[in-house]
Amino acid sequence: MCRFTLYLGPPIALSSLITEPTHSLIRQSLASTEREEPVNGDGFGVAWYVPSMSERPAAFRSVSPAWSNGNLIDLCRVTKTHCMLAHVRAATPGIPVTETNCHPFTQGRFAMMHNGDVGGFTRMRRRIISKLTDDSFNAMRGTTDSEHLFAMFLDAHAEITSEASTSETIAAALEATLVRLVSYAKALKITEPSYLNIAVADGHHAVAARCTTDAQGRADSLYVHTGRRYVCEGGVCRMISPTDGTGPTVIVSSEPLSTDAGWSEIPVNHLVLVGDDRSVTMRPCAL
Amino acid sequence: MCRFTLYLGPPIALSSLITEPTHSLIRQSLASTEREEPVNGDGFGVAWYVPSMSERPAAFRSVSPAWSNGNLIDLCRVTKTHCMLAHVRAATPGIPVTETNCHPFTQGRFAMMHNGDVGGFTRMRRRIISKLTDDSFNAMRGTTDSEHLFAMFLDAHAEITSEASTSETIAAALEATLVRLVSYAKALKITEPSYLNIAVADGHHAVAARCTTDAQGRADSLYVHTGRRYVCEGGVCRMISPTDGTGPTVIVSSEPLSTDAGWSEIPVNHLVLVGDDRSVTMRPCAL
Amino acid sequence: MCRFTLYLGPPIALSSLITEPTHSLIRQSLASTEREEPVNGDGFGVAWYVPSMSERPAAFRSVSPAWSNGNLIDLCRVTKTHCMLAHVRAATPGIPVTETNCHPFTQGRFAMMHNGDVGGFTRMRRRIISKLTDDSFNAMRGTTDSEHLFAMFLDAHAEITSEASTSETIAAALEATLVRLVSYAKALKITEPSYLNIAVADGHHAVAARCTTDAQGRADSLYVHTGRRYVCEGGVCRMISPTDGTGPTVIVSSEPLSTDAGWSEIPVNHLVLVGDDRSVTMRPCAL
Amino acid sequence: MCRFTLYLGPPIALSSLITEPTHSLIRQSLASTEREEPVNGDGFGVAWYVPSMSERPAAFRSVSPAWSNGNLIDLCRVTKTHCMLAHVRAATPGIPVTETNCHPFTQGRFAMMHNGDVGGFTRMRRRIISKLTDDSFNAMRGTTDSEHLFAMFLDAHAEITSEASTSETIAAALEATLVRLVSYAKALKITEPSYLNIAVADGHHAVAARCTTDAQGRADSLYVHTGRRYVCEGGVCRMISPTDGTGPTVIVSSEPLSTDAGWSEIPVNHLVLVGDDRSVTMRPCAL
Repeated sequence: MCRFTLYLGPPIALSSLITEPTHSLIRQSLASTEREEPVNGDGFGVAWYVPSMSERPAAFRSVSPAWSNGNLIDLCRVTKTHCMLAHVRAATPGIPVTETNCHPFTQGRFAMMHNGDVGGFTRMRRRIISKLTDDSFNAMRGTTDSEHLFAMFLDAHAEITSEASTSETIAAALEATLVRLVSYAKALKITEPSYLNIAVADGHHAVAARCTTDAQGRADSLYVHTGRRYVCEGGVCRMISPTDGTGPTVIVSSEPLSTDAGWSEIPVNHLVLVGDDRSVTMRPCAL
Repeated sequence: MCRFTLYLGPPIALSSLITEPTHSLIRQSLASTEREEPVNGDGFGVAWYVPSMSERPAAFRSVSPAWSNGNLIDLCRVTKTHCMLAHVRAATPGIPVTETNCHPFTQGRFAMMHNGDVGGFTRMRRRIISKLTDDSFNAMRGTTDSEHLFAMFLDAHAEITSEASTSETIAAALEATLVRLVSYAKALKITEPSYLNIAVADGHHAVAARCTTDAQGRADSLYVHTGRRYVCEGGVCRMISPTDGTGPTVIVSSEPLSTDAGWSEIPVNHLVLVGDDRSVTMRPCAL
Repeated sequence: MCRFTLYLGPPIALSSLITEPTHSLIRQSLASTEREEPVNGDGFGVAWYVPSMSERPAAFRSVSPAWSNGNLIDLCRVTKTHCMLAHVRAATPGIPVTETNCHPFTQGRFAMMHNGDVGGFTRMRRRIISKLTDDSFNAMRGTTDSEHLFAMFLDAHAEITSEASTSETIAAALEATLVRLVSYAKALKITEPSYLNIAVADGHHAVAARCTTDAQGRADSLYVHTGRRYVCEGGVCRMISPTDGTGPTVIVSSEPLSTDAGWSEIPVNHLVLVGDDRSVTMRPCAL
Repeated sequence: MCRFTLYLGPPIALSSLITEPTHSLIRQSLASTEREEPVNGDGFGVAWYVPSMSERPAAFRSVSPAWSNGNLIDLCRVTKTHCMLAHVRAATPGIPVTETNCHPFTQGRFAMMHNGDVGGFTRMRRRIISKLTDDSFNAMRGTTDSEHLFAMFLDAHAEITSEASTSETIAAALEATLVRLVSYAKALKITEPSYLNIAVADGHHAVAARCTTDAQGRADSLYVHTGRRYVCEGGVCRMISPTDGTGPTVIVSSEPLSTDAGWSEIPVNHLVLVGDDRSVTMRPCAL
């Protein structure tokens, strides 16, 4: 189980999302409030896009706890981006803590992160692997259920289009991934539920899922917050509505980063689609 | 702030102290119960003695959280010792998380660990350094207040005797260290209190201090548990009284490792001396 | 490409194998002499057996270079064993440097390490995975070709016997593994050669292979050294013949550890079998 | 002993300096050509300036070898800067490999890195410490001779001016630092020579020193390369003279990064001053 934050909006310092908010991911790594086990100290990662340099996101991932990582703090201070994914990890017991198992995973233009776990993964893993293309299989560097989901997503997206991705193609590929996962579980008579809070981005669009095959009341928390611009001033972070024409902004986060109004829970088994213009659409996920 | 466990007794697997007890240090690293901030994820360390190989203790220290360290778990499984110090660290803010700052510190036959902090350390540090001998100064590898205490202890012990250490020489050197610390603070008009739960061992003897210059009610917790032999069987750890002549055993720990009776709180500003025969003496510490 | 050392003999300090010899693995990690690329700085590992504590070996593995690891140096100083495998790694380009990818790999009573690489591994990997049992597949923690060989070996050994392993069962399982590997390569029309210097042990027996599917002249180096007892005194390490009845001793190493006479090259495509009594048998490997 | 590269010029991708040149620092970390010991695998660091975000440089430092660090490779791919310092480290024996001991060191607007060592440092260290201000002493996080030089530099610079730094104030402070170092050595009758290749920058200006108290022929190598713009295209890196008005550019490096003409050796015991307009002045260093 883990915590994550996704951002799309005007260029913002990573620090305004990761280190400054009173309930930032850094803080959630030590003391999240909406999970039974409050510590997420098994590594972290952040992926961000710099379109002027590369279509591919950069990722900085480490097995050390986020709260003590001086490199992360410096990086956050000088780096601005319009699209970011950040994740703190509490490892599934038995899955090793390595950099390669830290989220977000990146491949080509895509970055993905996951909070939850795939029920019966060890029994399902080879089924998943046998269905992957060579490319997506060989792109895997670690052994987590989450990275297998990412590989499935990459294949599903390539099946849907060979053109540029949109929020619709990403959503369709993510849904296809979840549908396949459910079908594999069924075929293998796996009854353990899966918890599938997932965010995927391509630098311009993003999709977040809050899904589970368990009872809806047991889904992990996930919030969306929209507005013009998210700012941190004097230690207070909040969404503001400047008249300078900036915005819009979308944040999706396992827990609200700040105490300002507007953080709304995403309904269980729903997708949130964020368009190139950062318009937000919500719809049920056909699981 | 940190948590630690000291053991002297018949050879015991490290696992019986570090990984198996229901409230082992591994568990305390994730969720200690007697501190406001429950996480001790800023590294750990264990020092143990193997007299047949070396008079000097071995140390295994790492910046990764204890709870996910496969090397630690394997080491604990195959290593037996009659004298061990183990420590999980929650770094003082601003002091880096490096292996060199992890406890226990070792030098020659001595190993030391500390839970607490030295009030006004940054203002006192150069005073401390200026009074150290070259040997103890140069032996420091990190920058913590705790390692400076260790260097002061090494000097104090060398002043007391050039012969082999006993629990009395160790206790005297530890008291001298604390007295000097208080005098430096006074000279520098430092008013912040110090929290000084400390354990020192030489492989045959050990001394633990539960001291503070703050109000006694604010001292960190520290327990002592004595008996014949500490065993873990079927997931239950406890002190037993076998008739095989083994023992005695002494455990000093920030928090009781197990729920068996006999864990008694060390009075504040007291020292516990453990002799070569593992006899236990308690006495006030002249601070 | 990597370097490794296997030891079976009277209990010996790890330091006598890993840190003290003039051409120890520590030194080979910085400057091996029999490879084109002299640096093996992508992690290391050591596995050793302590039969009084556990049938399963312990492993200590780290991504930091062996030459600067204080924990390794301390561990070597106080640890004695009669059976050890040690390895320094130069990662195959593109395969991540993680602890889970460091050798030796351990499972149950077995430990294995590998120097070389599997030709066309990325194209062969799913073929390998599809043939593994659930147990050996799920036991993998990393993504190296070497760990896949270990999983194949575990399956092959379980097919050969459900009883205790001997040098003959280990050799047979290792040969079966290599034969399967060659057949997979053939089926997939993979023409890149494989380099397969491998050592496997169970704590009592061991087998080492010096094999390649390339021209024999291109095999990686591998030496065997036998005698009564290996000792390091005053900085000089060598095999001696004490009259105290200790021994025999067998060392298999990528490069000789010391300059004493008796290090003999293992013929290419041969296996070396070490029995419970440390008798040594050499025979061609049916590849 | 180490290797380093300093850059001032038009904004450039870090990759063009650190990963792409045929003889980049990444390559020098594995196989430098102008030192007896070719491996610099004891950590690395890069500091870079992003004036739009902060006057203070960011630093990314790690104990893992530069050649296998995926985070570094990603960071280099998406980060542009007009002022950068990068360093690969071969630790002085006995000084621990920790992130806090990796260069460059940063404080306020300054970043410094060092290649060489201070002769007799362990005997000189407390003399240095006793002369530091509280601020520069407390800013130290590690224990290297190099970081002590940085602390001395910070004090010397603060003595020279409380205003903004220029290449002249930096050069004067660096010279004062070296003069003090020599005087401390003399007072303590230290005869071991010091090797003092140093680069300091404030984001706008920089100074590099190639100095030693040993015979001049034993100084470490240091080169300067100036021109309009440094580019990497199709795997070839070189200084070019575009007509687009960009430039000028200055690179100072322990070894030439590329085979293009123009890398000239800095004379021993000389300083190179780089102005706000990237004009280059060279002058003897009064040691």
